[in-house]
Amino acid sequence: MESRFGFQIVARDGAARRGLLSTPHGEVSTPAFMCVATYGAVRGVAPDELRGLGAQILLANTYHLHERPGDDVVREQGGLAGFTGWRGPWLTDSGGYQVTSLAHRMKLSEEGITFASPLDGKRRLLTPEGAVAIQQALGPDIAMVLDECQPAEPAKSGDSAEPAESAGRRKESSERPRPDSTRMRQAMERTLRWAERCRRAHTRSDQALFGIVQGGVSLELRRESARGTVSIGFEGYAHGGLGLGETREQRGDLIEGANELLPDEAPRYLMGLGKPIDLLDGVARGVDLFDCVVPTRNGRHGLLFTSAGLLNIKNARFARDSGPIDPECDCPACQNHSRAYLRHLMKTGEALGARLASLHNLRFYLSLLEQARAAISSGNFASLHRKIEARVGCRV
Amino acid sequence: MESRFGFQIVARDGAARRGLLSTPHGEVSTPAFMCVATYGAVRGVAPDELRGLGAQILLANTYHLHERPGDDVVREQGGLAGFTGWRGPWLTDSGGYQVTSLAHRMKLSEEGITFASPLDGKRRLLTPEGAVAIQQALGPDIAMVLDECQPAEPAKSGDSAEPAESAGRRKESSERPRPDSTRMRQAMERTLRWAERCRRAHTRSDQALFGIVQGGVSLELRRESARGTVSIGFEGYAHGGLGLGETREQRGDLIEGANELLPDEAPRYLMGLGKPIDLLDGVARGVDLFDCVVPTRNGRHGLLFTSAGLLNIKNARFARDSGPIDPECDCPACQNHSRAYLRHLMKTGEALGARLASLHNLRFYLSLLEQARAAISSGNFASLHRKIEARVGCRV
Repeated sequence: MESRFGFQIVARDGAARRGLLSTPHGEVSTPAFMCVATYGAVRGVAPDELRGLGAQILLANTYHLHERPGDDVVREQGGLAGFTGWRGPWLTDSGGYQVTSLAHRMKLSEEGITFASPLDGKRRLLTPEGAVAIQQALGPDIAMVLDECQPAEPAKSGDSAEPAESAGRRKESSERPRPDSTRMRQAMERTLRWAERCRRAHTRSDQALFGIVQGGVSLELRRESARGTVSIGFEGYAHGGLGLGETREQRGDLIEGANELLPDEAPRYLMGLGKPIDLLDGVARGVDLFDCVVPTRNGRHGLLFTSAGLLNIKNARFARDSGPIDPECDCPACQNHSRAYLRHLMKTGEALGARLASLHNLRFYLSLLEQARAAISSGNFASLHRKIEARVGCRV
Repeated sequence: MESRFGFQIVARDGAARRGLLSTPHGEVSTPAFMCVATYGAVRGVAPDELRGLGAQILLANTYHLHERPGDDVVREQGGLAGFTGWRGPWLTDSGGYQVTSLAHRMKLSEEGITFASPLDGKRRLLTPEGAVAIQQALGPDIAMVLDECQPAEPAKSGDSAEPAESAGRRKESSERPRPDSTRMRQAMERTLRWAERCRRAHTRSDQALFGIVQGGVSLELRRESARGTVSIGFEGYAHGGLGLGETREQRGDLIEGANELLPDEAPRYLMGLGKPIDLLDGVARGVDLFDCVVPTRNGRHGLLFTSAGLLNIKNARFARDSGPIDPECDCPACQNHSRAYLRHLMKTGEALGARLASLHNLRFYLSLLEQARAAISSGNFASLHRKIEARVGCRV
């Protein structure tokens, strides 16, 4: 096992870059999509299948694993790579987003985030040092700093945040009162102070730590956040708090504005986004890593990505359709099964249906990034970007 | 594709026999366990995985497929082998048991079974001719006659039968009023009349039709049923209505008493049973085919079969157990994952947990029958039978 973390850019096409990320558990060709394995497993999908789909690195949720089975158990079992059977690279989030959006009676203070566990109702405190300690125990190749995530509604002392998994992150701007700029500045500045505490607390030399740029939809705040985060110094940098209602154009400007200030030689990660076009928009601006629950969550609901756009497999018109989901796709679902069979499985709630749909959608995302890497190498990224925009569109 | 159905006995050990069943979709080494794929899919498990586990033939439920997606859809998509992606042999039940135990307002008459569909509440009639027509459309290699299944409680006109999937079939004798012998005789005689109607209605030359021996727990009735069924003449014979509360010894006697009257050269199928020891008890008396939901249903609940007995993976003592479920097992779950990880998946409700547990339990059953076949060939079946009884026991 190598113990060093590294990132090397191997090709460029405009601001887009193709890179090679080295981690203790293997290499990752970037730009790359990280499949979400909340509890250390992608819903219904086994590690060897993920490898077959072209997955290179998985993302697990620190907060969920801290609750169950506990980071001490994961550490004892050899860390995420030993515990889960996915022996390749792992990234964990810091748990801050989950605590802010899922936990009850969440309260932010300079010390950290106090919340009531949804599991047992007990009050807990997540500090920057605690988030680092948990991630050092979980043992991913990449850990994230604890950032102050803007909750869906302005936090009031004693308020309970939204408990539902789907709440918060995807709220439309119309439902979400825009935090005032004072509050956005305070959150951004606290994130910087927490980032510094995380940096000091982090001691594992075989694990990279990424900082997170915050600042809401203010370009000025995001640029200030980027400068401050870079001055602390991390192995990589993430864009946090996006995909929360800003327009596509706004998001592009915010990413571009921060990227200009991030070191070219460090990997950049756009957290939690998004639709296929969002990924390519990010790649076009020099982002290297992505994660999103959209392919697996949509898959479980029968919404499938294809080269011709989105398809709802539960639709009656597929009842007797003996063709594959997508004739251009090489996933196991498309190779072995028809639309009619997949529709039948989804309609009857058979677990194999959600699994095949997830496999298909994950392959769509992983293949999209493979195409992006090839296009960057051949100088055709802009053409791929336009093609996907026209064929797959911007809806999810 | 061969179009002929055949059965050849290749070895004997006492009453136990090893055979080779030829079907249009491939050969099956017997004694064999048929994995249950109710809606045309084993819960969460893909066809290539089943093949890897050693599955040779699957069982689907006529009644479920008739409701969804409809037998016309399955026929149009190339029958079960074309529709599902499992290109090997299939057997379907007749739907009678499901209708009797799952449907509402079930009413038996000489014509057939009238019931209200649980899907849309509409009244439907399943006749022997209808059960054959549906199975001819579904296209399994082996179809079953419609038999009169004893419902969980004596049927009264307008009564609704138990709707829950788990109800009925596994009822203990204490919960289940014993039908009087007049009623048992009437049901057995009606089953014979229905068997004759099925035989006349069945026209597919590339599909075998099996008769079903009924008669409750009466040896006399079962022997009479066997004689009558044989005189109609089928490609194979099943023991129906067992596993409903009779003792192990009773069941053994009932199977043996009927088997003596069944033609030696035809395959024999013990329907819906059961625990590992039940299968070996059947093999010892010359049964060739088995099916049961126990491995997959137990798996979904975290109950795992091992060479040392049954194990509840959710138990706290496995939280830090880095060993495999069963060191003697060669299934993908045991090869790639620890008890600690599987317990974590089951405790958090991750779909991968139920899938790995099902894979493991199915492999246990399939391997058990592999061992039985080898033991018959080498004349050691009695020794295997005793070993499994001592190590795995008789509980489920």
